[in-house]
Amino acid sequence: MHSVKIKIQIQQGSHIAFGPGKAELLKAISSEGSISGAAKSMNMSYKRAWDLVMVMNASFKEPLVTTVIGGSHGGGAMLTQFGHDVLQEYVEIQSKSERYVLSEMDNFLSTLAPVSNVK
Amino acid sequence: MHSVKIKIQIQQGSHIAFGPGKAELLKAISSEGSISGAAKSMNMSYKRAWDLVMVMNASFKEPLVTTVIGGSHGGGAMLTQFGHDVLQEYVEIQSKSERYVLSEMDNFLSTLAPVSNVK
Repeated sequence: MHSVKIKIQIQQGSHIAFGPGKAELLKAISSEGSISGAAKSMNMSYKRAWDLVMVMNASFKEPLVTTVIGGSHGGGAMLTQFGHDVLQEYVEIQSKSERYVLSEMDNFLSTLAPVSNVK
Repeated sequence: MHSVKIKIQIQQGSHIAFGPGKAELLKAISSEGSISGAAKSMNMSYKRAWDLVMVMNASFKEPLVTTVIGGSHGGGAMLTQFGHDVLQEYVEIQSKSERYVLSEMDNFLSTLAPVSNVK
């Protein structure tokens, strides 16, 4: 079986404002409730996750992630409504674009060999 | 300034039959005239370049790269006509898809801050 995947990266000057890795990180923060938990679930250092969040928050007009101070677990992080909206829109554009690319690739995919050709 | 880049990967079973890295490698083989020269120009080991060529050649119905035996430089490699066609089609789909994604991203890009916000 063949399948087509696309990765969409939004560059802003010299850095990447948003892309597949940052989208995954937002999903993980949303489900884990903290940056440290999200980092752990993605096998990423806390520092790297924190840096990615800082870049995201500075790249958009509003913050995507907000930190929660204190509480029984010593604080955590969650997506803002704006963060949820950005993530959802990215995911939708991603799906729609993947369908478009697939529709453009009929001829290209027909030049591929059956899977069994590759050892 | 914001810009949008996309990477298109064609998966075939458990491996990647074609994508941005393999497209770059084909371009490099075409301009360098050998797999070793292409590997060097991409800062890639000869073994890795060779393996990528083997996967590509096995992934399509015809080989994309052919080796030239002998000659004053001890042999080399070049793209087959089929290889040129596959590369050209990939590059065209890539450009067309990037324009499509960009057209879908008007609203998303309007939520980005000016570049000067990011340190």
